[in-house]
Amino acid sequence: MVKRKTTRKRGGNPGKKGPYWLYGLHSVAAALANPERRCLKLLATQQGAAALAGSKIPANTQLSPQIAGREDLERALPPGAVHQGLALLVEPLPAPDLAAVLPAEGPAVVVALDQVSDPQNLGGILRSAAGFGALAVITQDRHAPGVTPSLAKAASGALEAVPLVQVNNLVRALEDLKKQGFWVVGLDAEAEEPLSVLDAGSRVVLLLGAEGAGLRRLSKETCDFLAAIPLQGPVASLNVGTAAAIGLYELLGRPAAG
Amino acid sequence: MVKRKTTRKRGGNPGKKGPYWLYGLHSVAAALANPERRCLKLLATQQGAAALAGSKIPANTQLSPQIAGREDLERALPPGAVHQGLALLVEPLPAPDLAAVLPAEGPAVVVALDQVSDPQNLGGILRSAAGFGALAVITQDRHAPGVTPSLAKAASGALEAVPLVQVNNLVRALEDLKKQGFWVVGLDAEAEEPLSVLDAGSRVVLLLGAEGAGLRRLSKETCDFLAAIPLQGPVASLNVGTAAAIGLYELLGRPAAG
Repeated sequence: MVKRKTTRKRGGNPGKKGPYWLYGLHSVAAALANPERRCLKLLATQQGAAALAGSKIPANTQLSPQIAGREDLERALPPGAVHQGLALLVEPLPAPDLAAVLPAEGPAVVVALDQVSDPQNLGGILRSAAGFGALAVITQDRHAPGVTPSLAKAASGALEAVPLVQVNNLVRALEDLKKQGFWVVGLDAEAEEPLSVLDAGSRVVLLLGAEGAGLRRLSKETCDFLAAIPLQGPVASLNVGTAAAIGLYELLGRPAAG
Repeated sequence: MVKRKTTRKRGGNPGKKGPYWLYGLHSVAAALANPERRCLKLLATQQGAAALAGSKIPANTQLSPQIAGREDLERALPPGAVHQGLALLVEPLPAPDLAAVLPAEGPAVVVALDQVSDPQNLGGILRSAAGFGALAVITQDRHAPGVTPSLAKAASGALEAVPLVQVNNLVRALEDLKKQGFWVVGLDAEAEEPLSVLDAGSRVVLLLGAEGAGLRRLSKETCDFLAAIPLQGPVASLNVGTAAAIGLYELLGRPAAG
Protein backbone atom coordinates (compact mmCIF):
# COMPACT_ATOMS: atom_id res chain seq x y z
CA MET A 1 0.00 0.00 0.00
CA VAL A 2 1.34 3.41 -0.95
CA LYS A 3 1.51 5.58 2.09
CA ARG A 4 0.93 9.24 1.45
CA LYS A 5 1.32 12.02 3.90
CA THR A 6 -1.80 13.80 5.02
CA THR A 7 -1.68 17.55 4.56
CA ARG A 8 -1.27 19.18 7.90
CA LYS A 9 0.05 22.24 9.62
CA ARG A 10 3.48 21.85 11.11
CA GLY A 11 5.37 23.37 13.95
CA GLY A 12 2.68 24.43 16.33
CA ASN A 13 -0.28 23.25 18.30
CA PRO A 14 -3.65 23.90 16.65
CA GLY A 15 -4.51 27.59 16.65
CA LYS A 16 -2.34 28.46 19.61
CA LYS A 17 1.26 29.52 19.42
CA GLY A 18 1.98 30.56 22.99
CA PRO A 19 1.39 29.11 26.45
CA TYR A 20 -2.18 28.71 27.72
CA TRP A 21 -3.94 27.75 30.93
CA LEU A 22 -5.48 24.38 31.72
CA TYR A 23 -7.79 24.03 34.71
CA GLY A 24 -9.79 21.45 36.65
CA LEU A 25 -8.41 18.37 38.40
CA HIS A 26 -8.47 15.91 35.49
CA SER A 27 -6.99 18.26 32.89
CA VAL A 28 -4.25 19.46 35.22
CA ALA A 29 -3.33 16.02 36.56
CA ALA A 30 -3.22 14.52 33.05
CA ALA A 31 -1.01 17.34 31.76
CA LEU A 32 1.38 16.97 34.70
CA ALA A 33 1.57 13.23 33.96
CA ASN A 34 2.25 13.70 30.24
CA PRO A 35 6.01 13.62 29.50
CA GLU A 36 5.34 15.42 26.17
CA ARG A 37 3.79 18.40 27.94
CA ARG A 38 5.91 21.34 29.13
CA CYS A 39 4.35 22.78 32.27
CA LEU A 40 5.34 26.32 33.27
CA LYS A 41 3.39 27.31 36.35
CA LEU A 42 0.87 25.67 38.67
CA LEU A 43 -1.55 27.76 40.73
CA ALA A 44 -3.55 25.90 43.37
CA THR A 45 -5.81 26.74 46.25
CA GLN A 46 -5.19 24.73 49.45
CA GLN A 47 -8.09 22.46 48.50
CA GLY A 48 -6.92 22.14 44.89
CA ALA A 49 -3.42 21.16 46.00
CA ALA A 50 -4.85 18.55 48.37
CA ALA A 51 -7.08 17.10 45.62
CA LEU A 52 -4.13 16.91 43.25
CA ALA A 53 -1.95 15.22 45.87
CA GLY A 54 -4.76 12.70 46.44
CA SER A 55 -5.24 11.92 42.73
CA LYS A 56 -3.73 8.68 41.51
CA ILE A 57 -2.07 10.11 38.42
CA PRO A 58 1.72 10.24 38.80
CA ALA A 59 3.27 13.59 37.91
CA ASN A 60 6.13 13.53 35.43
CA THR A 61 7.26 16.98 36.42
CA GLN A 62 8.82 18.48 39.53
CA LEU A 63 6.62 21.57 39.34
CA SER A 64 5.35 22.46 42.83
CA PRO A 65 2.07 24.31 43.20
CA GLN A 66 2.06 27.99 44.12
CA ILE A 67 -0.65 28.24 46.73
CA ALA A 68 -3.07 30.98 45.65
CA GLY A 69 -6.52 32.33 46.40
CA ARG A 70 -9.59 31.63 44.27
CA GLU A 71 -9.44 35.22 43.02
CA ASP A 72 -5.90 34.69 41.68
CA LEU A 73 -7.10 31.68 39.68
CA GLU A 74 -10.16 33.53 38.47
CA ARG A 75 -8.00 36.40 37.19
CA ALA A 76 -5.99 33.97 35.05
CA LEU A 77 -8.95 31.97 33.69
CA PRO A 78 -11.97 32.68 31.48
CA PRO A 79 -15.12 33.89 33.30
CA GLY A 80 -17.19 31.14 34.85
CA ALA A 81 -14.38 28.54 34.64
CA VAL A 82 -15.02 25.57 36.96
CA HIS A 83 -11.38 25.32 38.01
CA GLN A 84 -11.67 23.12 41.13
CA GLY A 85 -8.83 25.14 42.66
CA LEU A 86 -6.26 24.24 40.00
CA ALA A 87 -4.79 26.20 37.07
CA LEU A 88 -1.74 25.11 35.10
CA LEU A 89 0.12 27.22 32.54
CA VAL A 90 1.45 24.98 29.76
CA GLU A 91 3.21 25.12 26.43
CA PRO A 92 1.23 23.75 23.47
CA LEU A 93 1.90 20.11 22.67
CA PRO A 94 4.07 19.38 19.62
CA ALA A 95 1.91 19.25 16.45
CA PRO A 96 0.90 15.61 16.00
CA ASP A 97 1.83 13.74 12.84
CA LEU A 98 -1.12 11.74 11.53
CA ALA A 99 1.14 9.33 9.66
CA ALA A 100 2.97 8.52 12.89
CA VAL A 101 -0.25 8.08 14.85
CA LEU A 102 -2.09 5.68 12.51
CA PRO A 103 -0.90 2.15 11.86
CA ALA A 104 -0.17 1.39 8.18
CA GLU A 105 -2.62 -1.50 8.34
CA GLY A 106 -4.99 -3.18 10.74
CA PRO A 107 -7.90 -1.77 12.71
CA ALA A 108 -8.01 1.98 13.31
CA VAL A 109 -10.81 4.47 13.87
CA VAL A 110 -10.39 8.24 13.66
CA VAL A 111 -12.90 11.05 13.99
CA ALA A 112 -12.96 13.89 11.45
CA LEU A 113 -14.89 17.12 12.05
CA ASP A 114 -16.21 19.40 9.32
CA GLN A 115 -16.51 22.92 10.78
CA VAL A 116 -17.29 21.93 14.34
CA SER A 117 -16.35 25.13 16.12
CA ASP A 118 -17.55 24.88 19.71
CA PRO A 119 -14.57 24.22 22.00
CA GLN A 120 -16.67 22.34 24.53
CA ASN A 121 -17.99 19.97 21.88
CA LEU A 122 -14.50 19.41 20.54
CA GLY A 123 -13.21 18.72 24.06
CA GLY A 124 -16.06 16.30 24.69
CA ILE A 125 -15.32 14.48 21.42
CA LEU A 126 -11.66 14.10 22.42
CA ARG A 127 -12.83 12.58 25.70
CA SER A 128 -15.12 10.08 23.96
CA ALA A 129 -12.33 9.25 21.49
CA ALA A 130 -10.02 8.54 24.43
CA GLY A 131 -12.69 6.39 26.08
CA PHE A 132 -13.47 4.22 23.07
CA GLY A 133 -9.93 4.07 21.68
CA ALA A 134 -10.16 6.20 18.53
CA LEU A 135 -6.63 7.11 17.45
CA ALA A 136 -7.01 10.77 16.45
CA VAL A 137 -9.43 13.65 16.00
CA ILE A 138 -8.95 15.61 12.76
CA THR A 139 -10.21 19.16 12.26
CA GLN A 140 -9.69 21.78 9.60
CA ASP A 141 -7.39 24.71 10.38
CA ARG A 142 -9.62 27.59 9.50
CA HIS A 143 -12.80 26.42 11.13
CA ALA A 144 -11.75 24.65 14.29
CA PRO A 145 -11.15 26.41 17.58
CA GLY A 146 -7.62 26.41 18.92
CA VAL A 147 -6.89 24.63 22.14
CA THR A 148 -8.82 26.81 24.56
CA PRO A 149 -9.02 26.25 28.32
CA SER A 150 -12.66 25.23 28.02
CA LEU A 151 -11.79 22.69 25.31
CA ALA A 152 -9.16 21.20 27.62
CA LYS A 153 -11.58 21.15 30.55
CA ALA A 154 -14.26 19.32 28.55
CA ALA A 155 -11.62 16.86 27.34
CA SER A 156 -10.96 16.01 31.00
CA GLY A 157 -7.39 14.89 30.36
CA ALA A 158 -8.01 13.39 26.90
CA LEU A 159 -6.05 16.22 25.25
CA GLU A 160 -2.94 14.46 26.57
CA ALA A 161 -4.04 11.06 25.20
CA VAL A 162 -5.62 11.60 21.76
CA PRO A 163 -3.83 13.63 19.06
CA LEU A 164 -5.82 16.60 17.80
CA VAL A 165 -4.65 16.94 14.20
CA GLN A 166 -5.37 20.07 12.20
CA VAL A 167 -5.26 19.88 8.41
CA ASN A 168 -5.45 22.62 5.81
CA ASN A 169 -7.85 20.79 3.57
CA LEU A 170 -10.20 18.28 5.13
CA VAL A 171 -11.37 16.69 1.87
CA ARG A 172 -7.80 16.09 0.73
CA ALA A 173 -6.98 14.55 4.13
CA LEU A 174 -9.98 12.23 3.77
CA GLU A 175 -8.90 11.23 0.26
CA ASP A 176 -5.43 10.43 1.60
CA LEU A 177 -6.91 8.27 4.33
CA LYS A 178 -9.03 6.42 1.76
CA LYS A 179 -5.82 5.56 -0.10
CA GLN A 180 -4.57 4.08 3.17
CA GLY A 181 -7.51 1.69 3.34
CA PHE A 182 -9.92 3.78 5.39
CA TRP A 183 -13.64 3.94 4.66
CA VAL A 184 -15.20 7.32 5.33
CA VAL A 185 -18.54 7.14 7.14
CA GLY A 186 -20.42 10.43 7.34
CA LEU A 187 -23.13 10.92 9.95
CA ASP A 188 -26.09 12.62 8.30
CA ALA A 189 -29.53 13.06 9.82
CA GLU A 190 -31.08 12.69 6.35
CA ALA A 191 -29.35 9.41 5.50
CA GLU A 192 -31.63 6.44 4.86
CA GLU A 193 -29.47 3.80 6.45
CA PRO A 194 -29.08 3.66 10.22
CA LEU A 195 -25.52 3.55 11.47
CA SER A 196 -26.13 0.21 13.18
CA VAL A 197 -26.62 -1.79 9.95
CA LEU A 198 -23.42 -0.50 8.39
CA ASP A 199 -20.43 -2.76 7.91
CA ALA A 200 -17.56 -0.43 7.13
CA GLY A 201 -14.73 -2.77 8.06
CA SER A 202 -12.07 -2.08 10.64
CA ARG A 203 -10.41 1.06 9.24
CA VAL A 204 -12.95 3.85 9.53
CA VAL A 205 -13.05 7.63 9.51
CA LEU A 206 -16.17 8.84 11.33
CA LEU A 207 -17.04 12.21 9.82
CA LEU A 208 -19.38 14.73 11.46
CA GLY A 209 -20.53 18.19 10.44
CA ALA A 210 -21.59 21.15 12.53
CA GLU A 211 -24.94 21.14 14.30
CA GLY A 212 -27.56 22.66 12.07
CA ALA A 213 -25.42 23.01 8.95
CA GLY A 214 -24.38 19.34 8.80
CA LEU A 215 -21.78 18.09 6.34
CA ARG A 216 -20.77 20.41 3.50
CA ARG A 217 -21.42 19.20 -0.03
CA LEU A 218 -17.81 18.34 -0.85
CA SER A 219 -17.30 16.54 2.45
CA LYS A 220 -20.49 14.58 1.86
CA GLU A 221 -19.37 13.56 -1.62
CA THR A 222 -16.11 12.27 -0.19
CA CYS A 223 -17.96 9.80 2.07
CA ASP A 224 -18.10 6.11 1.19
CA PHE A 225 -21.21 5.75 3.32
CA LEU A 226 -23.76 8.09 4.86
CA ALA A 227 -25.57 6.89 7.93
CA ALA A 228 -28.09 8.26 10.42
CA ILE A 229 -28.69 7.92 14.13
CA PRO A 230 -32.45 7.25 14.26
CA LEU A 231 -34.37 9.78 16.37
CA GLN A 232 -38.02 9.69 17.31
CA GLY A 233 -38.47 12.31 20.00
CA PRO A 234 -40.04 15.77 19.95
CA VAL A 235 -36.69 17.58 19.50
CA ALA A 236 -35.09 15.68 16.63
CA SER A 237 -31.50 16.83 16.89
CA LEU A 238 -28.50 15.65 18.85
CA ASN A 239 -25.57 17.60 20.17
CA VAL A 240 -22.60 16.95 17.83
CA GLY A 241 -20.53 15.58 20.70
CA THR A 242 -23.33 13.17 21.57
CA ALA A 243 -23.61 12.05 17.95
CA ALA A 244 -19.84 11.46 17.78
CA ALA A 245 -19.93 9.39 20.96
CA ILE A 246 -22.76 7.22 19.64
CA GLY A 247 -20.84 6.74 16.39
CA LEU A 248 -17.74 5.66 18.31
CA TYR A 249 -19.84 3.37 20.47
CA GLU A 250 -21.18 1.63 17.34
CA LEU A 251 -17.72 1.35 15.79
CA LEU A 252 -15.61 0.54 18.83
CA GLY A 253 -17.64 0.11 22.00
CA ARG A 254 -20.49 -2.19 21.13
CA PRO A 255 -19.68 -5.92 21.25
CA ALA A 256 -20.11 -7.20 17.68
CA ALA A 257 -22.40 -10.07 18.62
CA GLY A 258 -24.65 -7.86 20.80
CA MET B 1 -52.08 -2.60 38.02
CA VAL B 2 -52.10 -0.50 41.15
CA LYS B 3 -50.94 2.98 40.30
CA ARG B 4 -49.07 4.74 43.06
CA LYS B 5 -48.00 8.31 43.11
CA THR B 6 -44.30 8.99 43.00
CA THR B 7 -43.03 11.21 45.77
CA ARG B 8 -42.27 14.61 44.38
CA LYS B 9 -42.03 18.24 45.26
CA ARG B 10 -45.10 20.24 44.41
CA GLY B 11 -45.85 23.79 43.51
CA GLY B 12 -42.66 24.97 41.94
CA ASN B 13 -40.13 24.27 39.28
CA PRO B 14 -37.08 22.34 40.48
CA GLY B 15 -34.89 24.45 42.72
CA LYS B 16 -36.08 27.75 41.36
CA LYS B 17 -39.01 29.72 42.73
CA GLY B 18 -38.77 32.96 40.83
CA PRO B 19 -38.29 34.02 37.23
CA TYR B 20 -35.00 33.22 35.48
CA TRP B 21 -33.26 33.99 32.20
CA LEU B 22 -33.02 31.68 29.20
CA TYR B 23 -30.61 32.50 26.40
CA GLY B 24 -29.45 31.27 23.00
CA LEU B 25 -31.62 30.90 19.89
CA HIS B 26 -32.94 27.37 20.45
CA SER B 27 -33.77 27.82 24.14
CA VAL B 28 -35.48 31.15 23.59
CA ALA B 29 -37.43 30.10 20.49
CA ALA B 30 -38.61 26.87 22.16
CA ALA B 31 -39.75 28.75 25.28
CA LEU B 32 -41.65 31.30 23.20
CA ALA B 33 -43.34 28.43 21.36
CA ASN B 34 -44.34 26.58 24.55
CA PRO B 35 -47.91 27.48 25.61
CA GLU B 36 -47.12 26.27 29.16
CA ARG B 37 -44.30 28.80 29.54
CA ARG B 38 -44.96 32.32 30.87
CA CYS B 39 -42.50 34.69 29.21
CA LEU B 40 -41.93 38.05 30.89
CA LYS B 41 -39.29 39.95 28.95
CA LEU B 42 -37.27 39.42 25.78
CA LEU B 43 -33.97 41.22 25.24
CA ALA B 44 -32.46 40.94 21.77
CA THR B 45 -29.64 42.49 19.81
CA GLN B 46 -30.50 43.46 16.24
CA GLN B 47 -28.86 40.24 15.06
CA GLY B 48 -30.59 38.15 17.72
CA ALA B 49 -33.99 39.56 16.76
CA ALA B 50 -33.31 38.81 13.09
CA ALA B 51 -32.23 35.23 13.87
CA LEU B 52 -35.37 34.69 15.96
CA ALA B 53 -37.61 36.09 13.22
CA GLY B 54 -35.88 33.72 10.77
CA SER B 55 -36.30 30.62 12.95
CA LYS B 56 -39.09 28.27 11.99
CA ILE B 57 -40.51 27.85 15.48
CA PRO B 58 -43.89 29.61 15.82
CA ALA B 59 -44.14 31.86 18.87
CA ASN B 60 -47.18 31.31 21.10
CA THR B 61 -46.78 34.68 22.74
CA GLN B 62 -47.13 38.25 21.61
CA LEU B 63 -43.99 39.34 23.46
CA SER B 64 -41.98 41.70 21.26
CA PRO B 65 -38.23 41.92 21.70
CA GLN B 66 -36.69 44.93 23.38
CA ILE B 67 -33.71 45.75 21.20
CA ALA B 68 -30.64 45.93 23.43
CA GLY B 69 -26.85 45.99 23.24
CA ARG B 70 -24.64 42.99 23.94
CA GLU B 71 -23.60 44.63 27.22
CA ASP B 72 -27.24 44.75 28.38
CA LEU B 73 -27.59 41.03 27.76
CA GLU B 74 -24.27 40.30 29.42
CA ARG B 75 -25.36 42.18 32.55
CA ALA B 76 -28.44 39.97 32.85
CA LEU B 77 -26.69 36.65 32.16
CA PRO B 78 -23.98 34.55 33.83
CA PRO B 79 -20.38 35.30 32.80
CA GLY B 80 -19.31 33.68 29.55
CA ALA B 81 -22.89 32.91 28.43
CA VAL B 82 -23.07 32.21 24.69
CA HIS B 83 -26.33 34.12 24.25
CA GLN B 84 -26.44 34.58 20.47
CA GLY B 85 -28.04 37.98 21.04
CA LEU B 86 -31.13 36.64 22.82
CA ALA B 87 -32.16 36.59 26.49
CA LEU B 88 -35.66 35.75 27.70
CA LEU B 89 -36.93 36.21 31.26
CA VAL B 90 -39.41 33.44 32.08
CA GLU B 91 -41.48 32.06 34.93
CA PRO B 92 -40.61 28.50 35.96
CA LEU B 93 -42.71 25.82 34.31
CA PRO B 94 -45.41 24.21 36.45
CA ALA B 95 -43.96 21.26 38.41
CA PRO B 96 -44.49 18.17 36.25
CA ASP B 97 -46.53 15.25 37.57
CA LEU B 98 -44.76 11.95 36.81
CA ALA B 99 -48.03 10.01 37.00
CA ALA B 100 -49.54 12.25 34.32
CA VAL B 101 -46.48 11.99 32.08
CA LEU B 102 -46.06 8.20 32.01
CA PRO B 103 -48.58 5.89 30.37
CA ALA B 104 -50.08 3.30 32.75
CA GLU B 105 -48.94 0.55 30.39
CA GLY B 106 -47.04 0.10 27.16
CA PRO B 107 -43.54 1.19 26.18
CA ALA B 108 -41.93 4.00 28.14
CA VAL B 109 -38.35 4.95 28.91
CA VAL B 110 -37.34 7.45 31.57
CA VAL B 111 -33.92 8.59 32.76
CA ALA B 112 -33.16 8.80 36.49
CA LEU B 113 -30.09 10.59 37.83
CA ASP B 114 -28.43 9.84 41.14
CA GLN B 115 -26.61 13.00 42.28
CA VAL B 116 -25.73 14.34 38.87
CA SER B 117 -25.11 17.96 39.75
CA ASP B 118 -23.59 19.67 36.71
CA PRO B 119 -26.23 21.84 35.00
CA GLN B 120 -24.65 21.42 31.59
CA ASN B 121 -24.73 17.64 31.85
CA LEU B 122 -28.33 17.73 33.03
CA GLY B 123 -29.25 20.04 30.13
CA GLY B 124 -27.47 17.76 27.67
CA ILE B 125 -29.32 14.72 29.05
CA LEU B 126 -32.66 16.52 28.60
CA ARG B 127 -31.68 17.18 24.98
CA SER B 128 -30.81 13.53 24.33
CA ALA B 129 -34.02 12.45 26.06
CA ALA B 130 -35.97 14.75 23.74
CA GLY B 131 -34.10 13.37 20.72
CA PHE B 132 -34.66 9.70 21.44
CA GLY B 133 -38.15 10.06 22.93
CA ALA B 134 -37.59 9.36 26.62
CA LEU B 135 -40.62 10.60 28.54
CA ALA B 136 -39.03 12.24 31.60
CA VAL B 137 -35.81 12.92 33.44
CA ILE B 138 -35.97 12.32 37.19
CA THR B 139 -33.55 13.87 39.68
CA GLN B 140 -33.42 14.07 43.43
CA ASP B 141 -34.30 17.39 45.08
CA ARG B 142 -31.32 17.87 47.28
CA HIS B 143 -28.59 16.95 44.84
CA ALA B 144 -29.77 18.23 41.47
CA PRO B 145 -29.15 21.74 40.25
CA GLY B 146 -32.17 23.96 39.78
CA VAL B 147 -33.06 25.13 36.31
CA THR B 148 -30.11 27.40 35.64
CA PRO B 149 -29.59 29.38 32.43
CA SER B 150 -26.68 27.13 31.44
CA LEU B 151 -28.84 24.03 31.95
CA ALA B 152 -31.47 25.52 29.66
CA LYS B 153 -28.84 26.46 27.08
CA ALA B 154 -27.38 22.94 26.99
CA ALA B 155 -30.91 21.53 26.71
CA SER B 156 -31.30 23.59 23.52
CA GLY B 157 -35.09 23.79 23.78
CA ALA B 158 -35.59 20.34 25.32
CA LEU B 159 -36.54 21.88 28.68
CA GLU B 160 -39.85 22.75 27.02
CA ALA B 161 -40.34 19.21 25.68
CA VAL B 162 -39.21 16.75 28.36
CA PRO B 163 -40.46 17.03 31.96
CA LEU B 164 -37.70 17.41 34.53
CA VAL B 165 -39.19 15.77 37.61
CA GLN B 166 -37.63 16.29 41.03
CA VAL B 167 -38.36 13.76 43.75
CA ASN B 168 -37.55 13.82 47.45
CA ASN B 169 -36.39 10.24 47.59
CA LEU B 170 -34.97 8.68 44.44
CA VAL B 171 -34.98 5.09 45.71
CA ARG B 172 -38.64 5.34 46.68
CA ALA B 173 -39.47 6.81 43.27
CA LEU B 174 -37.67 3.89 41.59
CA GLU B 175 -39.56 1.38 43.75
CA ASP B 176 -42.84 3.04 42.74
CA LEU B 177 -41.88 2.80 39.07
CA LYS B 178 -41.05 -0.90 39.50
CA LYS B 179 -44.58 -1.44 40.80
CA GLN B 180 -45.79 0.16 37.58
CA GLY B 181 -43.99 -2.43 35.48
CA PHE B 182 -40.68 -0.64 34.92
CA TRP B 183 -37.33 -2.42 35.05
CA VAL B 184 -34.54 -0.35 36.51
CA VAL B 185 -31.28 -0.57 34.52
CA GLY B 186 -28.29 1.01 36.24
CA LEU B 187 -25.25 2.00 34.20
CA ASP B 188 -22.15 0.93 36.09
CA ALA B 189 -18.61 0.90 34.73
CA GLU B 190 -17.85 -2.18 36.89
CA ALA B 191 -20.80 -4.25 35.65
CA GLU B 192 -19.94 -7.50 33.89
CA GLU B 193 -22.68 -7.39 31.30
CA PRO B 194 -22.53 -4.89 28.44
CA LEU B 195 -25.65 -2.81 27.94
CA SER B 196 -26.10 -4.17 24.42
CA VAL B 197 -26.90 -7.75 25.49
CA LEU B 198 -29.54 -6.68 27.97
CA ASP B 199 -33.21 -7.36 27.30
CA ALA B 200 -35.05 -5.21 29.79
CA GLY B 201 -38.39 -5.08 28.01
CA SER B 202 -40.18 -1.95 26.92
CA ARG B 203 -40.71 -0.14 30.24
CA VAL B 204 -37.29 0.91 31.44
CA VAL B 205 -35.76 3.36 33.88
CA LEU B 206 -32.18 4.15 32.83
CA LEU B 207 -30.33 5.08 36.03
CA LEU B 208 -26.99 6.91 36.07
CA GLY B 209 -24.79 8.11 38.91
CA ALA B 210 -22.38 11.02 39.11
CA GLU B 211 -19.06 10.85 37.27
CA GLY B 212 -16.40 9.44 39.54
CA ALA B 213 -18.69 8.48 42.42
CA GLY B 214 -21.08 6.37 40.32
CA LEU B 215 -24.29 4.93 41.73
CA ARG B 216 -24.75 5.02 45.49
CA ARG B 217 -25.13 1.70 47.29
CA LEU B 218 -28.88 1.97 47.87
CA SER B 219 -29.56 3.09 44.30
CA LYS B 220 -27.48 0.20 42.99
CA GLU B 221 -29.39 -2.29 45.13
CA THR B 222 -32.65 -0.99 43.69
CA CYS B 223 -31.57 -1.86 40.15
CA ASP B 224 -32.98 -4.93 38.39
CA PHE B 225 -29.94 -4.97 36.10
CA LEU B 226 -26.50 -3.41 36.10
CA ALA B 227 -24.84 -2.91 32.74
CA ALA B 228 -21.65 -1.36 31.41
CA ILE B 229 -20.68 0.59 28.31
CA PRO B 230 -17.47 -1.20 27.22
CA LEU B 231 -14.45 1.10 26.99
CA GLN B 232 -11.02 0.25 25.67
CA GLY B 233 -9.26 3.57 25.30
CA PRO B 234 -6.50 5.21 27.33
CA VAL B 235 -8.92 7.40 29.35
CA ALA B 236 -11.52 4.90 30.49
CA SER B 237 -14.32 7.18 31.58
CA LEU B 238 -17.22 8.82 29.79
CA ASN B 239 -18.97 12.08 30.49
CA VAL B 240 -22.27 11.27 32.27
CA GLY B 241 -24.26 13.01 29.53
CA THR B 242 -22.48 10.90 26.91
CA ALA B 243 -23.20 7.72 28.87
CA ALA B 244 -26.87 8.66 29.18
CA ALA B 245 -27.11 9.31 25.43
CA ILE B 246 -25.55 5.93 24.61
CA GLY B 247 -27.97 4.25 27.01
CA LEU B 248 -30.93 5.96 25.33
CA TYR B 249 -29.55 5.03 21.93
CA GLU B 250 -29.47 1.34 22.94
CA LEU B 251 -32.97 1.48 24.44
CA LEU B 252 -34.75 3.73 21.95
CA GLY B 253 -32.61 4.69 19.00
CA ARG B 254 -30.98 1.54 17.73
CA PRO B 255 -33.10 -0.59 15.38
CA ALA B 256 -33.69 -3.89 17.18
CA ALA B 257 -32.55 -6.05 14.27
CA GLY B 258 -29.37 -4.03 13.68
